Order: sequence, then C-alpha cells, then structure tokens
Amino acid sequence: MDIRIGFGVDVHQLVADRKLFIGGKELPSDLGALGHSDADVLLHAICDALLGALNLRDIGFHFSDTDPQYKGIDSKVLLERTYALIREKGYTIGNMDCTVIAEHPKLNPHIPDMQRIIASLLACETDQISIKATTHEQVDSFGERRAIKAYAVCLLKK
Amino acid sequence: MDIRIGFGVDVHQLVADRKLFIGGKELPSDLGALGHSDADVLLHAICDALLGALNLRDIGFHFSDTDPQYKGIDSKVLLERTYALIREKGYTIGNMDCTVIAEHPKLNPHIPDMQRIIASLLACETDQISIKATTHEQVDSFGERRAIKAYAVCLLKK
Amino acid sequence: MDIRIGFGVDVHQLVADRKLFIGGKELPSDLGALGHSDADVLLHAICDALLGALNLRDIGFHFSDTDPQYKGIDSKVLLERTYALIREKGYTIGNMDCTVIAEHPKLNPHIPDMQRIIASLLACETDQISIKATTHEQVDSFGERRAIKAYAVCLLKK
Repeated sequence: MDIRIGFGVDVHQLVADRKLFIGGKELPSDLGALGHSDADVLLHAICDALLGALNLRDIGFHFSDTDPQYKGIDSKVLLERTYALIREKGYTIGNMDCTVIAEHPKLNPHIPDMQRIIASLLACETDQISIKATTHEQVDSFGERRAIKAYAVCLLKK
Repeated sequence: MDIRIGFGVDVHQLVADRKLFIGGKELPSDLGALGHSDADVLLHAICDALLGALNLRDIGFHFSDTDPQYKGIDSKVLLERTYALIREKGYTIGNMDCTVIAEHPKLNPHIPDMQRIIASLLACETDQISIKATTHEQVDSFGERRAIKAYAVCLLKK
Repeated sequence: MDIRIGFGVDVHQLVADRKLFIGGKELPSDLGALGHSDADVLLHAICDALLGALNLRDIGFHFSDTDPQYKGIDSKVLLERTYALIREKGYTIGNMDCTVIAEHPKLNPHIPDMQRIIASLLACETDQISIKATTHEQVDSFGERRAIKAYAVCLLKK
C-alpha cells in the first residue's frame, strides 16, 4: 500500500462586516473572517493538507489571493478543484483529522453538517473526516478573537 | 492493515497558585496551568489526537469543562476513558509523537517518567510514545510564560 | 510494513544583523533568524519530526543550544546527523510535508531548491519532500515579522 501524510494550517483575521464560513457552512457570528476568498479557515487547511501529502505545492500556489477570479470565491470550489488534483494522481482519502481554534461561536452543533459537506466534496464517508473544536484560552490573537486558526492532517492511499 | 491518523493541540494559561501537571506528572514550577481539570496540556492533546483519529469528536465533547464531575479531575482518568473508547473500536496505538511548548521548567529530565505513565495508560511500550520539548523563543503568550501548549500526532492500527 | 509518524515544530525570532536560512538556503531578507546555530527553522522542524517518529528525543537533546561546538553551525549538518540516527534504526523516509509561516520574503521561488537540498540529505526523491508556505495574516509575532515558524510531519518506513 502506498500511503502518504499531509498537514495543513491556516489563519484568518476576524473582522466586523464579513461573514464567517467554517467547513463550508456559514455560522452565526458578530465577526467574520477576512480574506480574498470566503476565508474558510477549515477548508483552506484541508486543501493544504491534501496538496502537501502529494507534493502539489500549496493553496496559495494554485489559487492566488491576488487573482481576481478567486475574489469572494466559495472555498468549496477550491476544495473540489484540489480533490481533482488528488484523484488525478490516483489517491483517495484514508482519514483526515481537523482542529478549529476559535473562541466563539460554539462549533460543536455544526460539526455534523461540516462533515457531510466535506465528505461529499472528497467522495468519502463522514467517518473519514474528523473535526474537533477548541479555544485558545483567551491568549494571543486567537484567544482575543482577532483571528481564527485551523489545522488538518490526512493520510492518502493509492 | 487499517491505519488512521490523529492530531491534537491544547493550550492552557499559566497562573500563580495552580500546580503544573504535564504528561501525568506534577512538575516543580512557580506557575501552574489554569483549567477546569488539572489542566494537563500534554494529556489533553493526546486525548484529542486519539479521539480525532477515530472520529470520536473531541475532549470537550466527552468531558465538558462546565461539568462539575470533571472539576479538578486528574487528566490520567480522562486519558484512560479516552483509550477505552479507542479499544471499543478495536484499535491500538501504532506510535505517537508529542511536542510540549514551554519556556520553563526544563522538561527533559521528566520525559522518561511521562513516557512510562502514558504508555501504561495506553497499554503500549514507552518506545511508542515520543515526547519532545521546545520553547517559543520568548515571543507571544507561550514565549512570555503566560501560557503553554502541546501537540500530539498518532497512528492507530486495527 | 512498520510505519511511524513524526511531527516537528520550530520557532525563531527575526532580528536585524542575522542571515535568514530556510530549508538549507540563504534567502534575501532584511531580517534574519536568531539562534545558536544558523537558526534554520525548517531544517530544525524536520529534524524534530524525524527524531520524534522514532522516539529519539528532540533536536535540543542531541544538539544543545548551549554547546559551543554547535555555535553558528550549518543546520544541514544537524539534519545529516539526524538522518544517520534514523538509518541506524533501519528506517527510510516515506514522505514528509512541511509548512513555513513567514510574512516575508516570498518562499515560493525557493521551494524547488530547498526540496533538492533536503531530499539529498535524506537520500530520497524531491517528490517525497513537500514544502508549503503561508503567512500569519499580520497577527501575533509571526504576523508582525518578529518571528518565523515551521511545521513538519513525516511517515517513516522500515
């Protein structure tokens, strides 16, 4: 069995007057994530884990944040295109484990929806896409609600 | 072979008038970790890595930090219960690699003890539980001794 | 197949009057990385991932930052010595996925060179060494150019 590991991490500032998308879902929040696309921190970390596993560079390399065609784009489209690159190389998802760092809002009620969205885009079962939530205990930008962060690790199999 | 990857990260504030538990061991320190339980940053990261590997949600989901039954609890109990969930699904530890970020105290002399404690709780050999220590080079809350952090990655096998 | 996972993370302050080495290559930059060695944040994260995968302690354990013999040392030498420890245990690289967090300079043009340098030191193909670059979105020490950070994950096979 050919098996490869990938790791992704992403950070976005939180600001007023933006929406908050995490895991492909808009969440109720007074603050939203700043970015060129819809700034979905979880989907971006997942894209980077998938690309990294197969040595396909990174999300900024494929979907430049200065390219007008990606302005405001739904990150589900970016994940879809990323997965197409993975499939081209003949790999599928083993499993993926994700962690979102956010003081607010509570992510737990939304995790099953996020899993369904992501599993559907990656043509796998929801059981292969773990999503965990934690806080940054009020310290640094993540703890002071000035930013959010996500990590993703994955195993890909051929 | 069925093999799955997990990743956990945890943060706790450092404060006066608390004890410092890391890896199941109380360490000599002028500052301790703040939390609802004993705030063992390393055992919490390990719990999350194990849960995440098998899509079993996260430590906050199983052991809520607002539930009085977990107030001041020894995190070794939480790790024991987490491992029971892993066993129920038929998995065992492949290996685990952990990193603790702390400016002080020096962790190196305590690492063999931590490995023995954790390996015993996870029914594996100490050689399967790597623990590394590093500093945050004096920057941000971790570098200014206002907080500590731990990461854990694992492979689980069935 | 015996397969093991490793994870490394490293942080260095950025200061004037130091050079900036990342991935074994000197990069053009007004700020450089502070450290006892050449302070190559990426090579250090890789060393820690390799050591952690095989429970060989950490980079600070093998190459102490108070030992005069490592003052100003080229981190490629440290990686070479680390890999010798891996080979002694009979393991080789499956794949490795790295992420460098830096606001500046742009790493993308240098990544193929870094991959060649690292693959050569680890006796593997460049396709086994993924390097990704991202920013910290202007927040915290990494976003304010007061520090840089790198993560590395790896699978080792026997």
